[in-house]
Amino acid sequence: MRNITLTLEYDGTRFAGWQTQKSRTIKSQKCPTLQETIEKVLQQILQEKVKLIASGRTDAGVHAKAQVANFKTCSKLSLSRLQEGLNALLPDDISVAAIEEAPFDFHSRFSAKSKTYRYTILYQKHRSALLKDKAYFCRYPLDIALMQKEAKCLLGEHDFKAFQASTKKVKNPLRIIKQIIITQEAPLLHIDIEANSFLYNMVRNIVGTLIEIGRGRLAPGSMKKILLSKDRKLAGPTAPACGLCLMEVKY
Amino acid sequence: MRNITLTLEYDGTRFAGWQTQKSRTIKSQKCPTLQETIEKVLQQILQEKVKLIASGRTDAGVHAKAQVANFKTCSKLSLSRLQEGLNALLPDDISVAAIEEAPFDFHSRFSAKSKTYRYTILYQKHRSALLKDKAYFCRYPLDIALMQKEAKCLLGEHDFKAFQASTKKVKNPLRIIKQIIITQEAPLLHIDIEANSFLYNMVRNIVGTLIEIGRGRLAPGSMKKILLSKDRKLAGPTAPACGLCLMEVKY
Repeated sequence: MRNITLTLEYDGTRFAGWQTQKSRTIKSQKCPTLQETIEKVLQQILQEKVKLIASGRTDAGVHAKAQVANFKTCSKLSLSRLQEGLNALLPDDISVAAIEEAPFDFHSRFSAKSKTYRYTILYQKHRSALLKDKAYFCRYPLDIALMQKEAKCLLGEHDFKAFQASTKKVKNPLRIIKQIIITQEAPLLHIDIEANSFLYNMVRNIVGTLIEIGRGRLAPGSMKKILLSKDRKLAGPTAPACGLCLMEVKY
Repeated sequence: MRNITLTLEYDGTRFAGWQTQKSRTIKSQKCPTLQETIEKVLQQILQEKVKLIASGRTDAGVHAKAQVANFKTCSKLSLSRLQEGLNALLPDDISVAAIEEAPFDFHSRFSAKSKTYRYTILYQKHRSALLKDKAYFCRYPLDIALMQKEAKCLLGEHDFKAFQASTKKVKNPLRIIKQIIITQEAPLLHIDIEANSFLYNMVRNIVGTLIEIGRGRLAPGSMKKILLSKDRKLAGPTAPACGLCLMEVKY
């Protein structure tokens, strides 16, 4: 048995997410999941049942520049042929950027040391046709320096319950944010967050809160108060999925 | 009567081009044109018949970062309200980046001094899901220095008949290329061409020829020979529309 890892790029726009949690429809058509779409093509190529495990389950509409996923196979097909076959047969909104042989006990999710997500805000007065589905359009003036300052209190190990989706509860809400960097590359604003792992919707809830602070709808000092409160109701709204992209998984 | 100019951004993927020359279908559905789509929304807002004139008719699948188009109207609606209305009602793959009042004799096409197109090549070994429809994927090694050298002979005023679509002939095939710059921004390769005006398919035929030269399928010195031959059959194939974007129109 071989253990093979794929580095996947995808445009999440038309997908129900990595794995369906609840079914999603667009124009009354059921959206496929990324996992089932890729597994189907892997099985077609390898002619055996395949279970694909990702570093994390990206949500509906969320993109990936470098999602990592692994699967086990008895096939002897070379890596380069497998990658070519996948890029030939996968739909054009999924591509395989790299493929590697991994140790047998490697697990995309449990072996991960950290993940980095980038949230992209289109920060100008009018929306952009070329960036549709790739950035969240924010037309309001933002105090970016304040957002940068407020974000700092999130660094390190904390109970991030205040930024966890209210529908999902985990036993251990402690997470370590290793980096949080806000950079302006006009007309875009990038918020890059690296953490050992993330609670469900954690990036989008942090970003939603940062935007409220940047717009002046939450006072300076709010981020720390919200974090310590562990109360989801005090944090800002969940920022839209289209701005989010999984950029890197470190092992 | 007012003369109003729009600076338009659009993702040309699902359109039959600015104005239909021949009808285009995707999955057996007739594709709309950009002109008819925008005119319809303008008429809806202004409640009068509107004719929209663009700086040039971009082809099916070609994008624009800053297409300029003008129309005349009796409406007294303010520019900011008109822009907001358009961005609210236009489909999300068309947006209005700017709007201005123009002198009555301004004509988007005839008043233009130059236009700049950017052709984007995805230059890596595997295709990219996030760049689908926005770049032409070229998996072959390219001699970029040679492409840069060969492109130089196109500068200045020439008869560009060799790079004109064989189906369209104009009386005067003389055009002035003011700049042609090839830059690498890995994994992308940009070819920026500024000219006083362009023959039909001229950019895509020049790019197709440059790629043939870069791949070594046309010998060094070919560009000059092809240009002087005025023979479309000697030039390379028409590069795909998805890589092309109208970047700027100067007046």
